[in-house]
Amino acid sequence: MIVVVRLGHRIVRDQRITSHCALVARAFGASKFIYSGDKDTALENSIRNVESRWGQAMEIEYSDNIMKTLRNYKESGYVLIHLTMYGIPVEERIQTLKSLDKMVIIIGGSRVPREIYTISDYNIAIGNQPHSEVAALGIMLHILGKRAEFKNPKLIIIPSENGKRVIRNDLKQ
Amino acid sequence: MIVVVRLGHRIVRDQRITSHCALVARAFGASKFIYSGDKDTALENSIRNVESRWGQAMEIEYSDNIMKTLRNYKESGYVLIHLTMYGIPVEERIQTLKSLDKMVIIIGGSRVPREIYTISDYNIAIGNQPHSEVAALGIMLHILGKRAEFKNPKLIIIPSENGKRVIRNDLKQ
Repeated sequence: MIVVVRLGHRIVRDQRITSHCALVARAFGASKFIYSGDKDTALENSIRNVESRWGQAMEIEYSDNIMKTLRNYKESGYVLIHLTMYGIPVEERIQTLKSLDKMVIIIGGSRVPREIYTISDYNIAIGNQPHSEVAALGIMLHILGKRAEFKNPKLIIIPSENGKRVIRNDLKQ
Repeated sequence: MIVVVRLGHRIVRDQRITSHCALVARAFGASKFIYSGDKDTALENSIRNVESRWGQAMEIEYSDNIMKTLRNYKESGYVLIHLTMYGIPVEERIQTLKSLDKMVIIIGGSRVPREIYTISDYNIAIGNQPHSEVAALGIMLHILGKRAEFKNPKLIIIPSENGKRVIRNDLKQ
């Protein structure tokens, strides 16, 4: 079970970045995406729209008290992993991280509060350079290598050497 | 040599996504980032600002004729790799891609023109689900595993278990 938590979402300014984070979470094995900051119905609808077209794999939820949410997950046996460029390089913790069954992967957020660093079991850097929470999440999930299952998709891509091939699954008999 | 090409940049709407793409390119081993679409001085300045603080690793350039730019690279022996969810899964081409010396990695772009699919030597999918060009680029570069060198940084992060440690390299004697 992988839960992804996106901190401090801001409507308009973060809409596309948070949307990319949610789609990356969905594509690479997270079963839940929780965001804090501004409640954003348009964001939630756009992710649910992707789910209805490309297959159900992940729920999206809003939390208005993210520290409480994180404490609850921790008490239920989830390991909290905060991705930050200030953390320990992921290469040094790969075996430990891959052995976990239940985890919450936390990504910023414009300003990450100090208590996120302390409540987290691991502060992990995907490279100690500034880049992107979208890429950090993608690389982390790629390393974990969980397979996502996409249920009842209307659209399925057939991989192609140099074009676009999509089948309409809902028209099948 | 890894060059990253970002297609069809739009000022305002794409500023943060393109900026994330450029920072990911820089963090994970690209030596040049070329973008097409709208010329965006603010974008270029923000990347150069990161370079001056965190170390020189990558140039950023604008192209007003991206097909010509791509043809020039191809004629100079670069292999063109277009990342698209419609392509062949990266897992099936890893050995080939890792063996390349000089490559251009191309990412969209709201609408990627058909000729990008045909000029590219490889159309590669990082998962056949919709997600993010930022994550696709990050995972691709992570798989390639090139080490970036960051020259003359003013700031260097010391990896930390649960805090932020940054040294000011320019104050050192």
